[in-house]
Amino acid sequence: MLILGIDPGTAITGFGVVDYRGNSFSMVECGCIRTQAGLPLAERLQTLYRGLLDTIKQYNPAHVAVEELFFNNNVRTALAVGHARGVILLAAAEAGVPVFEYTPLQVKQAVAGFGRAAKAQVQYMVKTILCLPSVPGPDDVADALAVAICHAHLYEWERKFK
Amino acid sequence: MLILGIDPGTAITGFGVVDYRGNSFSMVECGCIRTQAGLPLAERLQTLYRGLLDTIKQYNPAHVAVEELFFNNNVRTALAVGHARGVILLAAAEAGVPVFEYTPLQVKQAVAGFGRAAKAQVQYMVKTILCLPSVPGPDDVADALAVAICHAHLYEWERKFK
Repeated sequence: MLILGIDPGTAITGFGVVDYRGNSFSMVECGCIRTQAGLPLAERLQTLYRGLLDTIKQYNPAHVAVEELFFNNNVRTALAVGHARGVILLAAAEAGVPVFEYTPLQVKQAVAGFGRAAKAQVQYMVKTILCLPSVPGPDDVADALAVAICHAHLYEWERKFK
Repeated sequence: MLILGIDPGTAITGFGVVDYRGNSFSMVECGCIRTQAGLPLAERLQTLYRGLLDTIKQYNPAHVAVEELFFNNNVRTALAVGHARGVILLAAAEAGVPVFEYTPLQVKQAVAGFGRAAKAQVQYMVKTILCLPSVPGPDDVADALAVAICHAHLYEWERKFK
């Protein structure tokens, strides 16, 4: 099963496509969609939307998994991430791919076995689980791969035991 | 000049199309796009996106004017409005219509002449400026018309004096 994991942001959105078969993972592709600072927000969102639609068409994932926002106190950040997330969820819906959302706590728990794991621990586990020579960067890409791994684990668990 | 004003929300997004000629306004259409609570967020955003694209295609406005979020302390609200705003800005960009954003303060100032005007004052002015028999409801619709009027005033002003 191909899973597209996404770490949303207006300036940079990380994505990672992983193949989950039996009980093992392999990485198919990863990267990020960057939008140019200084351009009107509508155009930046359009770049993100189109880039994501292209990625979905190219890899045809069974599911899309997106990181939920951590509810900190920064309203400005929440609004900016909200813009990006809205466009990402829309791209998945327009492409007809089901979307699943996970909190950072769920992602850390699923990937590193501990909800308060440090970023470096999660990145190390992503590298290990996907048998990569090094941690893929920037952080947004490793985070996107972590969300995809998280979805594979939790979706499988739900199917087996619920 | 036809202007499409929008008051964004995930559950309900108000819109209003106004025609601004010479120095006078007339209302062409107004209404709201509602999305069903309980449906997945991606589907609700899709309803909003498609409804808005249809509205833009039907009326072919020269500009789209969108209300900016008032930065209060509610991060959850900011994220929800962010989702809707992202999709709205994208719809305008995909339709090739320039988007302008205004804060509630700018809208109140432009419509009621006072940045801290009460909601009822703004609504009364919308009704008066557009020569309507009553205030259009719900609030989201009157707010959307107010943003359209605000844009007409400020855009004209910028063109003449800057």
